[in-house]
Amino acid sequence: MVKKLRKKLIVAYKGTNYNGFARQAQDKVHGSGTRTISAEIEMAINKITTEEVKVIGAGRTDSGVHALAQVCLIDVRTQIGNFGLMQAINNKLPKDIVIKSIEDVSEEFHPTFSAKSKRYRYQILNSALPCPFKSDVVYYYPYKLDLLKMREAAKELIGTHDFKAFCAAKSSVLQKGSSTVRTILDIEIEKDSEEIITITVVGNGFLYNMVRIIVGTLIDKGMDRGIAIKEIIERKERKYAGKTVPASGLTMISVEY
Amino acid sequence: MVKKLRKKLIVAYKGTNYNGFARQAQDKVHGSGTRTISAEIEMAINKITTEEVKVIGAGRTDSGVHALAQVCLIDVRTQIGNFGLMQAINNKLPKDIVIKSIEDVSEEFHPTFSAKSKRYRYQILNSALPCPFKSDVVYYYPYKLDLLKMREAAKELIGTHDFKAFCAAKSSVLQKGSSTVRTILDIEIEKDSEEIITITVVGNGFLYNMVRIIVGTLIDKGMDRGIAIKEIIERKERKYAGKTVPASGLTMISVEY
Repeated sequence: MVKKLRKKLIVAYKGTNYNGFARQAQDKVHGSGTRTISAEIEMAINKITTEEVKVIGAGRTDSGVHALAQVCLIDVRTQIGNFGLMQAINNKLPKDIVIKSIEDVSEEFHPTFSAKSKRYRYQILNSALPCPFKSDVVYYYPYKLDLLKMREAAKELIGTHDFKAFCAAKSSVLQKGSSTVRTILDIEIEKDSEEIITITVVGNGFLYNMVRIIVGTLIDKGMDRGIAIKEIIERKERKYAGKTVPASGLTMISVEY
Repeated sequence: MVKKLRKKLIVAYKGTNYNGFARQAQDKVHGSGTRTISAEIEMAINKITTEEVKVIGAGRTDSGVHALAQVCLIDVRTQIGNFGLMQAINNKLPKDIVIKSIEDVSEEFHPTFSAKSKRYRYQILNSALPCPFKSDVVYYYPYKLDLLKMREAAKELIGTHDFKAFCAAKSSVLQKGSSTVRTILDIEIEKDSEEIITITVVGNGFLYNMVRIIVGTLIDKGMDRGIAIKEIIERKERKYAGKTVPASGLTMISVEY
């Protein structure tokens, strides 16, 4: 019998047409026709291999959130080489999900527990007119944002803080009373020639909706409104932070191990 | 009563989720739920104005074809200024259709009959891996194409020729026995750093599926196969030209008056 091997898959996807990467904890009952990224990858692999394969991802991206390099783990028995396996799976996948690489990893590797940090990107189209080609991958915000004010505010978020104010109220972390302390390693804010503001956030881990609430709060700062970041952190209440911006603008960029 | 005014609209749209700009001549009976770009714009305008407005476009883009600047005409009674009207219509439109400008034009202007030339762009993603974010707007072709051979072949297409071999067999032009002579003013082929080959075709008019058949023929040349362009033109039979490439890669760029 062929030996079971642990493999690491790097996966890119456009999340627009999916109900997230995996089932969310608070979303256990699914209607028929609800598609998830991990289920699509499992179905594609199961058409090629004989045993049912389970896909484990480094992070549970929400409905509508994208990934350039989600890291996935599978344990699989196959005689197909990694490159051929990648091509075979890609042939079975819908066009908005692509396996970018497959490599063998040791039994110790786990995409979630081995991760040291994660990098997310949020894109805001900050122009007079929306763009029909970008609407799936940006948040269209027509009012002029002050980038300098946003960058100043972002500096105050960097470091180890209790980010309770930046956590969705429905998060299981809050229900369990687990720690809401996280470390943000870096935030960069750039605007390109096509009027897209890209906010890149690197952290050791994120609370539920944390990046989207951080971006909503930075938009407040860019509009010169809301209380100081330092105070929002200290008050530890969701209502003092900005609104949760739409999922469309968010992309998981990479996971560092 | 407010005077009826003729207005020119510049419209950008992603055609992925639509059955083309307008109803096609050969496609008269529509099932329920079939959406067209022109009907969406009409519905948006009719929510703002009291009289029913009809939208006339410069070109009937097919199902799945996009536009950066489709030129449309409306005759409308309204007291709203052009900028306000544009914003009001955009607020009613789905995210994949955007009005980019509105201006008053004379009674003589007609988007189709006044047009001197049209510019189309076809994008081929010519890389080892497909891209989940670009699949709606490119044709993914993994085999390496020889750009020099494609450019050489393109030169032979420029000029006034009988393009019957490059016309879809089901075209009404063929059924009516109308002329299939057209003039191609320019073809440019470029590859960018993201491995997208862009083929820009400018002509005084195009037969049904002509740009997509031209691109299919140029791909044959890029793969070093098929008979010479000069011979395809001379034989005037659809079977000698290349295949019709998918609609996804095609975008109407501009109309010159």
